[in-house]
Amino acid sequence: MKRAPYCVFCDIVAGEEPASVVYEDDEVIVIRNVLRWAPVMLLAMTKEHRTQAELWDGGIGAVGRVAAEIGAKVCPDGFRLLSNFGFAAMQSQEHGHLHIVGGMQLGPYV
Amino acid sequence: MKRAPYCVFCDIVAGEEPASVVYEDDEVIVIRNVLRWAPVMLLAMTKEHRTQAELWDGGIGAVGRVAAEIGAKVCPDGFRLLSNFGFAAMQSQEHGHLHIVGGMQLGPYV
Repeated sequence: MKRAPYCVFCDIVAGEEPASVVYEDDEVIVIRNVLRWAPVMLLAMTKEHRTQAELWDGGIGAVGRVAAEIGAKVCPDGFRLLSNFGFAAMQSQEHGHLHIVGGMQLGPYV
Repeated sequence: MKRAPYCVFCDIVAGEEPASVVYEDDEVIVIRNVLRWAPVMLLAMTKEHRTQAELWDGGIGAVGRVAAEIGAKVCPDGFRLLSNFGFAAMQSQEHGHLHIVGGMQLGPYV
């Protein structure tokens, strides 16, 4: 499995960094975000290291399906799935990931 | 192709409502959002009517790939891809779609 040096998400997948794992299969892992902007803030990603562009270039299927299922389960009133690409969008981790946010009335997304 | 009554996105796909189309293939269409919160606000969707849940349950691959490619092209400094599910997330159209937002420094996504 492709792994990148100094990548905290790869370290979590390898069990070398602590994380609250809410879902896991052979390909996908979902963890709690350390941010607390909303009651529900989860991160869904491939276990393999992929950039955001690589994740969305074909690989988003399995991650997206899992993220939508978990979102519907934990946020029955609604939730948001999103990925940030690059500095202007506040992307902080190279390892591509999908945010699941909800548990409250969400504001605009810009 | 599955079409829903009273769906403005289906009407646009059918050529019965005006829209600014920025990309189109057999399966996917990308149009300009009428909202003007950010310099770039585009909507990517399947031409066929699918709910947000249906879109993300397997079908997001082609829409996501196109959206990420267009985002990278028109917003080289960064952009955000997102889908809103339900009232609490400000979803206004049943026809599932992915927002492409950028062209400025984006704020938080909650």
